[in-house]
Amino acid sequence: MPSLPARLTDRLVADPDVARTYGVDHSPGAVAPEDFTVVRARDRADVVEVLRYAAAHRIPVVPQGARTATTGAAMAIQGGIALNTEAIDHVEIDSVERIAVVGPGVVNADLKTQLTAYSLAYPPDPASSDSCTIGGNIATNAGGLCCVKYGVTADYVRGLEVVLPGGEVMRTGRRTAKGVTGYDLTGLFVGSEGTLGVVTEAVLRLIPAPDPALTVLAVFDTLEATMAGVAALREQRHTPSLVELLDGPSIAAIQEFGDYGFPADAGGVLLVQSDRIGHAHDDVLQYAEALASAGASDVAVADDAVEADLLLQGRRALNPALEARGSRVIEDVCVPVGRLGDLVRRVHEIADHHGLEAVCSGHAGDGNLHPCFFFDKDDPAQVAGAQAAFGETVEAAWALGGTLTGEHGVGTLKAPWLEGELGAAEVARQRAVKALFDPLGIMNPGRIFA
Amino acid sequence: MPSLPARLTDRLVADPDVARTYGVDHSPGAVAPEDFTVVRARDRADVVEVLRYAAAHRIPVVPQGARTATTGAAMAIQGGIALNTEAIDHVEIDSVERIAVVGPGVVNADLKTQLTAYSLAYPPDPASSDSCTIGGNIATNAGGLCCVKYGVTADYVRGLEVVLPGGEVMRTGRRTAKGVTGYDLTGLFVGSEGTLGVVTEAVLRLIPAPDPALTVLAVFDTLEATMAGVAALREQRHTPSLVELLDGPSIAAIQEFGDYGFPADAGGVLLVQSDRIGHAHDDVLQYAEALASAGASDVAVADDAVEADLLLQGRRALNPALEARGSRVIEDVCVPVGRLGDLVRRVHEIADHHGLEAVCSGHAGDGNLHPCFFFDKDDPAQVAGAQAAFGETVEAAWALGGTLTGEHGVGTLKAPWLEGELGAAEVARQRAVKALFDPLGIMNPGRIFA
Repeated sequence: MPSLPARLTDRLVADPDVARTYGVDHSPGAVAPEDFTVVRARDRADVVEVLRYAAAHRIPVVPQGARTATTGAAMAIQGGIALNTEAIDHVEIDSVERIAVVGPGVVNADLKTQLTAYSLAYPPDPASSDSCTIGGNIATNAGGLCCVKYGVTADYVRGLEVVLPGGEVMRTGRRTAKGVTGYDLTGLFVGSEGTLGVVTEAVLRLIPAPDPALTVLAVFDTLEATMAGVAALREQRHTPSLVELLDGPSIAAIQEFGDYGFPADAGGVLLVQSDRIGHAHDDVLQYAEALASAGASDVAVADDAVEADLLLQGRRALNPALEARGSRVIEDVCVPVGRLGDLVRRVHEIADHHGLEAVCSGHAGDGNLHPCFFFDKDDPAQVAGAQAAFGETVEAAWALGGTLTGEHGVGTLKAPWLEGELGAAEVARQRAVKALFDPLGIMNPGRIFA
Repeated sequence: MPSLPARLTDRLVADPDVARTYGVDHSPGAVAPEDFTVVRARDRADVVEVLRYAAAHRIPVVPQGARTATTGAAMAIQGGIALNTEAIDHVEIDSVERIAVVGPGVVNADLKTQLTAYSLAYPPDPASSDSCTIGGNIATNAGGLCCVKYGVTADYVRGLEVVLPGGEVMRTGRRTAKGVTGYDLTGLFVGSEGTLGVVTEAVLRLIPAPDPALTVLAVFDTLEATMAGVAALREQRHTPSLVELLDGPSIAAIQEFGDYGFPADAGGVLLVQSDRIGHAHDDVLQYAEALASAGASDVAVADDAVEADLLLQGRRALNPALEARGSRVIEDVCVPVGRLGDLVRRVHEIADHHGLEAVCSGHAGDGNLHPCFFFDKDDPAQVAGAQAAFGETVEAAWALGGTLTGEHGVGTLKAPWLEGELGAAEVARQRAVKALFDPLGIMNPGRIFA
């Protein structure tokens, strides 16, 4: 690589062992490439300098934050620059206009914490909230547990500052509550997985802080009864702030990991919350009644925030429980809420067909599940089976009117399925859109588009 | 014009007097061009046929619905086709997924009415709600009175079907609650004022129906006190569903038009509503108290929906009152809510400087006002003064951190100011985006971009 501009010398991560940690994201089996350079930008000017240099020398650039991506989108590229923006973490809160103007490196949970002093909230809450950055959330249009009531990251981004390949700084959207001057390119950049430019600042819309959430936990004997519970919640006039589903095998996996009080032979569990100001208590009682009527065999209601949190512990144990179980592929399909039961059934049919174990859990309130297929990585037949199951789950989601990714993004992992969902003409059009902003093709190449 | 495809023959509006009515929108002083063709499309296939034909013969196409645009964006173009989509008005409501899949010709208020049977709501409510179409709402990213609580049209559009010049059908976005497969081009089309393609279907997100709104009317002696009222409302944890401002001259204009019970010498009036389920009554009492503490000289609270409506009558009389007053230019600037008072003061300074009368009213909850400058159309000095005042108001909004259009769009009327707000580089980029979808430049040419 030609020598970097002097300004960037002390932004480099020189220690190769440390640098290697910037080479991977949280995608299963990620391995850092042999040769790449890590630049930790401190401000917009650093980003401009990197993108000017990269364009001049046609070097691929991977923008990245905390690398919590599960799709390969934040992994370094051989011979390229990993442009880390974690250190661009300024926060300006305007409580009158109810906006936060932030750098991409701000950690999601840190922003939430800072907002409590203003009685304001920024809802998007991916499971990795404690470590993931706003820049990464914007790159993937991250969702999380709150989406059933609050929507996704895109619903909270009013405007962006983006540095384009070559170093030009552009601004999208607005700071004001409304604004329709010219095209709004904000939504194009949100979810573009670093393939168009590097976000250096975002204007985020905030909401008045809700109440601390209270929780209902409902246990069902069968998957069918669990789905009747989901349907009963859809009829509530006050939308729950969280509706999480654990299927039978997920519950068994959690109970194997530790005793969280779930009956090991349950057909399904729903965890439901309300954070409605002044009404969380009434709401959870009403949800409990609706879930009991729908056929829950056991319903527990939290009386206060501490108890509410206890009830969620089993759900939180899911990821470590699954991780402890060994190699797996993780899905992220999203289907109409009314088809969730069909999706869970299909996932287990697919697993059975390949002789694999599977669990199926996720965000039942918005139709976005994260089925996992487990495999023995030393058994080629199981590895191939898991790969096949991954693709068949995508096809199952399509057949149910759904999409291949609800919130994780396409990355490298799902790029082979992109055309299957969008069609060749649309992929060609989206490549042309990319070329408009990145004519040299140096922005996160190989991600989204295979 | 070469002869139209046979399929379209009976979609033409043959009567020249009727056709002429399709030539204009609601922009001040709009005059239909001499020669244009009106096609009333009945379905997507008609739209495909028109755009295939138009591309083959390089004929400009103006997509239009009810022509309630105030900016010239829906006016026919000399030698072009006015492609009216009012008749594409299918509605499919899915109450489980809480979406409506609609044609562009559906009238905003008709959709709202249909949704009541499902206890669901589609919030965006431009003042022209009774006649404007969803297609036009999407074209301008329409706002209205509800935005302080509910946001704008873009916040409710999940996906679109669009016919591009040449006749290709593309789809954007998704039907499911989440979905991040590839770039989301939905936000690019929302607010693009018909310059990229023709929307033939939209997937709209719905919400549970709120309660009927109750109203508070607060009268203030001075503009400063009125703004203190606006600030007091910003501190409410329960955001009002409507916060409308009338300045002193607006009140005087309404009282000249008919007696709506406003004191003619008031400094300002705020109309505030709550539609919060089960709490509208508590909320308006609390707003009333906050407004009184902020310095209101008189506060009236509606006890029921009928009375609430009565209190809004004065606000509704504003547009006819202003229309009765003669020729005017209508602004649509949006500023940070904290700068509204400065904007109102600047508007009246500008009017005084040009010897014009002005009123300043609008959506105080979101910072989007519609100042009007009145002029004698037979007095060239007044005409020139009003034109100058229009531009100076845009500059005033910029100086306050605002934008030239909050919800009406750019159209032809504000195209000369586009570059002033976005800068030459951004305008060039947006023209390149347009060229990607409309390489021949036949989609609503001359709108947005001068």
